[in-house]
Amino acid sequence: MSAAPPAPLFARVALIGLGLIGSSIGHALKRGGLAGRIVGHARSEATRSAAMRIGFVDAVTASPQEAVAGADLVILCTPVGTYGALARAIEPALAPGAILTDVGSVKAGVIEAVAPHVPAGVHFVPGHPVAGTEQSGPEAGFAELFDQRWCILTPPPGTDEGAVARLRALWEAMGARVEVMEARHHDLVLAITSHVPHLIAYNIVGTAADLEAVTEAEVIKFSAGGFRDFTRIAASDPVMWRDIFLSNKEAVLEMLGRFVEDLTALQRAIRWGDGAMLEAHFRKTRAIRRQIIEAGQESGAPDFGRHAGAGKPPPER
Amino acid sequence: MSAAPPAPLFARVALIGLGLIGSSIGHALKRGGLAGRIVGHARSEATRSAAMRIGFVDAVTASPQEAVAGADLVILCTPVGTYGALARAIEPALAPGAILTDVGSVKAGVIEAVAPHVPAGVHFVPGHPVAGTEQSGPEAGFAELFDQRWCILTPPPGTDEGAVARLRALWEAMGARVEVMEARHHDLVLAITSHVPHLIAYNIVGTAADLEAVTEAEVIKFSAGGFRDFTRIAASDPVMWRDIFLSNKEAVLEMLGRFVEDLTALQRAIRWGDGAMLEAHFRKTRAIRRQIIEAGQESGAPDFGRHAGAGKPPPER
Repeated sequence: MSAAPPAPLFARVALIGLGLIGSSIGHALKRGGLAGRIVGHARSEATRSAAMRIGFVDAVTASPQEAVAGADLVILCTPVGTYGALARAIEPALAPGAILTDVGSVKAGVIEAVAPHVPAGVHFVPGHPVAGTEQSGPEAGFAELFDQRWCILTPPPGTDEGAVARLRALWEAMGARVEVMEARHHDLVLAITSHVPHLIAYNIVGTAADLEAVTEAEVIKFSAGGFRDFTRIAASDPVMWRDIFLSNKEAVLEMLGRFVEDLTALQRAIRWGDGAMLEAHFRKTRAIRRQIIEAGQESGAPDFGRHAGAGKPPPER
Repeated sequence: MSAAPPAPLFARVALIGLGLIGSSIGHALKRGGLAGRIVGHARSEATRSAAMRIGFVDAVTASPQEAVAGADLVILCTPVGTYGALARAIEPALAPGAILTDVGSVKAGVIEAVAPHVPAGVHFVPGHPVAGTEQSGPEAGFAELFDQRWCILTPPPGTDEGAVARLRALWEAMGARVEVMEARHHDLVLAITSHVPHLIAYNIVGTAADLEAVTEAEVIKFSAGGFRDFTRIAASDPVMWRDIFLSNKEAVLEMLGRFVEDLTALQRAIRWGDGAMLEAHFRKTRAIRRQIIEAGQESGAPDFGRHAGAGKPPPER
């Protein structure tokens, strides 16, 4: 591409937190020439050095206040449990007219924690890019993470529409599609599409590790029967997930209640040998998979625990 | 490779059932030159024609008796619920000295169903290759499916050791590693590493589809948060899985009971805001993932819903 570089959408972006999502945003901003300058903050010196070495930020600061000073966009990319204290800390340093956003997987709880510390003249637009891998840290990020994925914005009533439009434009420029919804609805949707799946993955991996009749070595050896896939999800960042469950308690407990109710029905069908009920249930779920692939949210290539190069996978169909 | 082709390990192999596993065995036998002749049987004429067209069998027959006549190895590759009737049907046609085996994900129930129909002089050696993808049918198979995966043999006490050794050699020649264990123990191990994971994946996909507050379109759009991975598992063959749950009822209900018990503890920790308990649990499960990757049962490359070619994935680390 030899076209002139696009004008940056923001003059100075502050990334507070430089893990998987923070570093991916840095890479995506660089890829698109979307920020005049990217300043990163992380508590750990090792993370800050890694960020500079990899080059997805232009500068790093040891204090969050210093990072946000003069920024026209501030993005919180730390576990949601840290947001309240962080918002209080950066409050005096936020520039008038700046947009403050985040990437947390919970939205009502985040608004409760952050909104009280947003100074007049600063626009708080909560956000959540629904994308990720099971890896963490500044080395885990890459520019393509958000391509074709959805980013949900949940501006509280009365939020400046210009600020929402600017943030939408930024996410679109980073490759994402944007949807605006109410925070509580977001939390219900994510409870079923993300939080409860993670909880049950963490749970079954724990159950398997605690058995007396089956050794851990056997669980590992024979994991290709399905278990393996759950360990991937259950390898996600523990602190991030602890905070998500604590912050989205109500919606998670509501969805978990339904999950257990439905599981009890399947359990009963197994106990009583109701093959027709089981088969009908298993048929229904295939259709949803097909729709997810059609919607571009997943590859249709069969997964058998290896990626290209490690054994020839069959052609995608 | 210009070396002389290896001598086939079996003169005539009968594949009863030509889906994902049957077709993959056909491909793996051809790859290694392991069978003098491969005769396939499937109930459906469309499947038989597909098998001939793809070429992983040398001949197909409409009757299972005809397929097994004269075979020194017969492999049942149909859903386990069909085994009893199939065994009864082929009983008179089995050649003296032949080895009869299967690929079912349940072993005690299979032995109960098949053993009564095994004529004297025929060696019944139950087997289970722990490998697969979420796809089904004769087009889904490929020769590499068993490479580096485990195949478990569960010969009942008194089984001819020479027959076990021959079958072991065949699976190893098809790329697999072989472990011998007691049938009931196999069923417990697979209940936790495969059957319960599939059940909960089927279950959460069903729960998500039945919500009033969250639309199916939303579930599909935002599936990249974790849900997507469950739909893959929940896309597996419905009849095969119905039969597995019915045949391995006791072990599945036992493991499911433990799963629910552990889930209740996590649910309680969320309700009471016990972050320390959640974090400790989530940390423990990461280690198991690492061991599975080290054991070669999974790639360490991060999964973000795309395979190579569809967006640059980050390097494997």
